[in-house]
Parts: sequence; C-alpha cells; structure tokens
Amino acid sequence: MDKKALYNLSYGVFMVGTRSGDKKNGCITNTCIQVTNDPLKVAAAVINANYTAELIKESGRFTLSMLDKSVSFDTIKHFGFQSGRNVNKLEGLTLPEDDNGIPYMGWSACAMLSLKVTDSIDLGSHTLFIAEVTDAKVLSDKAPLTYADYQNDVKPKPAQVSTDKKIKGWKCKICGYVYEGSELPKDYLCPICGHGPDDFEPIYE
Amino acid sequence: MDKKALYNLSYGVFMVGTRSGDKKNGCITNTCIQVTNDPLKVAAAVINANYTAELIKESGRFTLSMLDKSVSFDTIKHFGFQSGRNVNKLEGLTLPEDDNGIPYMGWSACAMLSLKVTDSIDLGSHTLFIAEVTDAKVLSDKAPLTYADYQNDVKPKPAQVSTDKKIKGWKCKICGYVYEGSELPKDYLCPICGHGPDDFEPIYE
Repeated sequence: MDKKALYNLSYGVFMVGTRSGDKKNGCITNTCIQVTNDPLKVAAAVINANYTAELIKESGRFTLSMLDKSVSFDTIKHFGFQSGRNVNKLEGLTLPEDDNGIPYMGWSACAMLSLKVTDSIDLGSHTLFIAEVTDAKVLSDKAPLTYADYQNDVKPKPAQVSTDKKIKGWKCKICGYVYEGSELPKDYLCPICGHGPDDFEPIYE
Repeated sequence: MDKKALYNLSYGVFMVGTRSGDKKNGCITNTCIQVTNDPLKVAAAVINANYTAELIKESGRFTLSMLDKSVSFDTIKHFGFQSGRNVNKLEGLTLPEDDNGIPYMGWSACAMLSLKVTDSIDLGSHTLFIAEVTDAKVLSDKAPLTYADYQNDVKPKPAQVSTDKKIKGWKCKICGYVYEGSELPKDYLCPICGHGPDDFEPIYE
C-alpha cells in the first residue's frame, strides 16, 4: 500500500468557528464535503483531541469559513497551529458572528456556512459531523484556497538545514507534541493528532 | 441563505469502481475526504438512486480513482452521464482490477484506493460510506483534477443559443431526467439525482 496515493485527494481549507456558552474558538481543517442537496447538508471531520470537537459536541453548532487564495500563512498559523485550550485565539480580533453568535472569518474567506449537527460518527481519532446548513453567505469573489495551493503557495518552504546543528527531537506543528530522537520514522503518526512526518519540524540542540 | 456559497467548497473528481458478483460498474463522483489516519479511512457520498450505491451496498467494497488533469470530457461523459442500469459501461474497455476484482481507471488517473465499507449513513438522497483503505497506488505524477478544473477547463462551454429555437424542456445531464417546460426554476433540484440548474441542458422543439 502506497499511502502517498492519499496526497492526491483534493480539499479546500476551512476555518471552523465554534461557541459553547462564553467559550469561543476557531481552528483550521481541510475535510468538508457537501453530502445532500435537500435538506442541504455537509460532512466535516474534526480531530477528537481538538478543543473544536469538544465545543461542537457541547453546542451542536459550528460555522465553516472557506478560506480564499489571499490568505496569509500567519492567519493559518494563528488558527491552526495553537490550541484554544491554551490560548484565546479570538482575543483582540473582531470576527463577525452568525445568527447563533458563532464567529466566522472576516477576511481571506470567500464564503461561510452556519451549521447544525444532525448526526455524528465517532471514528476513534476523529469525529465525522453531519450538519445541516442553516445559513450560507458568499463573502467575496476571490477563488477558494485548495489544500494543494496551501502546500505550494502559502506554507513557507523549509529553511536549508545547516549540517552543524544537531537535531534532538521533532515537534508536531499541528498539536505541539514532541517526539524525542534525531530521526523521525518515515511512517510516524503523531499519537495526539494523527498527522504524519510532513507536519513535524526539527528541534535543534 | 445564498446557496452559491456552497460552490466554493473544493473537491476532487473521482471514478468510483464497483463489482457485485458478475455486475461491474464505474461512475463519477466529487465527494470524498480522508477521515482518519490509523486505521486509514475515507468518507464518500453516493446518490442512492445510482446503480453504484446499489452495488456498494451489495458487496461492501469499491475503488476510487482520482482523475488527473489530462482527463477528457468524453471519459467523464462515459462514466458520469449514463447509468450502469441501462448500459454496460465497461464493455469493450480493458480496465485494471484490484485484488478484489473491482475495476479502476487505467488512464487519466493519478492514484487509486481499494476500499472496504465499515459504516454507512443513509442521508435520504445519498448514502455516506465510511470505508477503510485496504490498498492504495500512485498511478502517475500528473496533478489531480479538481472539480473547479472540471468546470473551467474540461466541461464544454454552452453553445450560443439561437433565439429562433424554442426550448420545450430541460434534461438533467447527470441522470437524464427530463423537466417539461420552457423555463427551469432557478432553485430547481433534479427529483432523481438532486443536481441543480447548472447540470440541466435545454431540449429544443
């Protein structure tokens, strides 16, 4: 089995907005598809270890903002590379909110959906939420960012590694988990969030 | 609610290969996402009215070929615009088969997955299949076709309509359903396959 085949699946890139009571959060995902037209429903997969999954399970609602090609790496990093459990990602930001008071993107997004969970399937590492679209807005006429665009155009290329620096570990850029050791196995998967070697960065001595 | 917001969701374009006993089929879909890493699983939505859904439910297995940017409109038309109930789409074609004897694309595809259904959710018009990846192959180094590429580069542009021809109906290009009447309502959805006005073509008197 050649797992690289999976790299050829095409995705968008989304900011998932959540709120449960006073707790609000936003994170980045790339797995959402429309599954029915009438009623209009989508399916979205979210990592169970993430704060976002916890808030969606509590409230049964979320928003999905479709990021467009103008998005900066800083925006992705802000929502995607830190956990809402440790940081209030919305502090100091003025994000618009939908009719349910759930935040969505006020910049770099071409469309948004307000979603109400109707079914969910626990798949171990992830939950797949099936959700009805209760509102939908076009936010700009910019083209949506695909995950391939993100990899090719938005994500910074790894800096040349100087050979006199010794690697003592690898940090998962998605959830922050640290693997101790100089060589990360090629088929390694983060035990916390399930991401592979491409999402780890070296920690130098 | 502005349903055009949903046009900004990004997808790939896939040939779904099926086999139940001696019955084999292939059709085109655009809704598949990876949902877990370990075990490796995907979710794919298939229209219940389609022969493909029937064969997947019978056998619990299917293949998914990720079409690449070299695909022709004729290929999409062959697998996507006719039903396996009326036509043996594989007759005269020599498609490769996976370890379970299920056909996949031998051309214009950059990767394939062999899939075994582990869960399914009936969503009315569609079934969402959750399936474990039992095999995966990279087939070429061509870039995967996105649904946006299909709309912009592969699908023929509608011919200029001469005003002296009168429209008597609209035919769904996905499933062949015919709407009788000169004007298709803007929010019309095909009662058979659920597709909207963009997927209908005029029938002239």
